[in-house]
Amino acid sequence: ESRLPGFATHQVGVAGAVLDETNGKVLVVQDKNKTKNAWKFPGGLSDLGENIGATAAREVYEETGVRAEFRSLLSIRQQHNHPGAFGMSDMYLICRLSPLTHSINFCRHECLRCEWMEVAELCRTAETTPITSRMARLLLYGLHHGFQHIDLTMEELPAVYSGMFYQLFHRQLPESLRCS
Amino acid sequence: ESRLPGFATHQVGVAGAVLDETNGKVLVVQDKNKTKNAWKFPGGLSDLGENIGATAAREVYEETGVRAEFRSLLSIRQQHNHPGAFGMSDMYLICRLSPLTHSINFCRHECLRCEWMEVAELCRTAETTPITSRMARLLLYGLHHGFQHIDLTMEELPAVYSGMFYQLFHRQLPESLRCS
Repeated sequence: ESRLPGFATHQVGVAGAVLDETNGKVLVVQDKNKTKNAWKFPGGLSDLGENIGATAAREVYEETGVRAEFRSLLSIRQQHNHPGAFGMSDMYLICRLSPLTHSINFCRHECLRCEWMEVAELCRTAETTPITSRMARLLLYGLHHGFQHIDLTMEELPAVYSGMFYQLFHRQLPESLRCS
Repeated sequence: ESRLPGFATHQVGVAGAVLDETNGKVLVVQDKNKTKNAWKFPGGLSDLGENIGATAAREVYEETGVRAEFRSLLSIRQQHNHPGAFGMSDMYLICRLSPLTHSINFCRHECLRCEWMEVAELCRTAETTPITSRMARLLLYGLHHGFQHIDLTMEELPAVYSGMFYQLFHRQLPESLRCS
C-alpha cells in the first residue's frame, strides 16, 4: 500500500440476498416512491466501522424483519459520481445470507412490498434491476451446482497492527493449499 | 440501496499481481524503509473517480516501470481504523494483471527491490506478508487449474442514471446463464 496519507473517497453500500436453500426462495423487496416497481435485495449504507456482513444482516432485518446470517460475498460494483454521494464514489457489495427466521414484517416506511420469491422467477421477471437479475442467475447456478462456484468466502485475520483484525474475501482454496 | 444521503467512509487501495502465464513468474517489490523486508505486490490508493483496474495498472507502472493490463479481481480486504486513514476504513482490492512489457525500471524512492519471482517461490518464502502469501497460493492454483477458479471478472454496464456506467465484478456464469 501507499505510504501517502489517504482520504475517504467511497461510500460503501451492502445488499443481502437471503436465500433459503431448502425451497430455493430468496427475500426481495420493492422500494416505496420509485417510478418503476423493481424487485431487489434489501440493503443500505455501511455505518463507519461496520463490517460488510454486519451491514447486510442489519439492513435485511431493518427492512424485512427477517434475521439472517452472512455466508459469502457474491459481487462488487464500483460507480463514480453516484447521485447522493456528493461527488464521492460508491462501492456496492452484494452478499449471500442464510435465513435464521422466515416471518416477514417489512418496514412500510421504506418498502412497498416484500416477499419470498423463487430464484427461478426472479431470473425471469422484467420487474427487477439488471444487477438483481444477474445475482438471481448466480444464485440459481449456486443452488444447482454448489455455492463454491459463486461464493467469495470470508476469513478474519490479524493485522500487522497489534490487536487489530481485517476481513479478507476471496475464492476458497482447495484444502491442500489452505495452510496459513 | 438506501435513499439516505451518504458520506465517504472508505479509502480504496488496489494492488496488482502481474502474472506472466508463460513462465509462472509474478512481479513483486520490497518497500523501502520497512523494518521487515517483505515481498509484496505493487499498489496504492485510488484517485477520486479512478476505476479499480486503472489504479492497479497505474501503480504497477509507477512503482516498477512494467506496463500491464487488468484481468480480474482476486480478493477484497476490509479494515477499520486503518493507520494513515484518519479514522476512516480501508478497502483493499487485489487484482490479477497480465504483463504487456517485462523490463523492470523500479522507483528507487518507493522500492528497495523489484523482481519477477516464481509464484511457487512466493508461496514458500517467509519474507512476505500473509495476504501476499495467500494470493500467491491462489495464483498457483489458477496457473495449474485455470483462472476461472480464482477470478472475479469485470463487466461495464449502463447505470440507471443516463450516460453513466458502473463496473460489476463477480464469478463468471456459464454461457447458458449469461444473457443480459
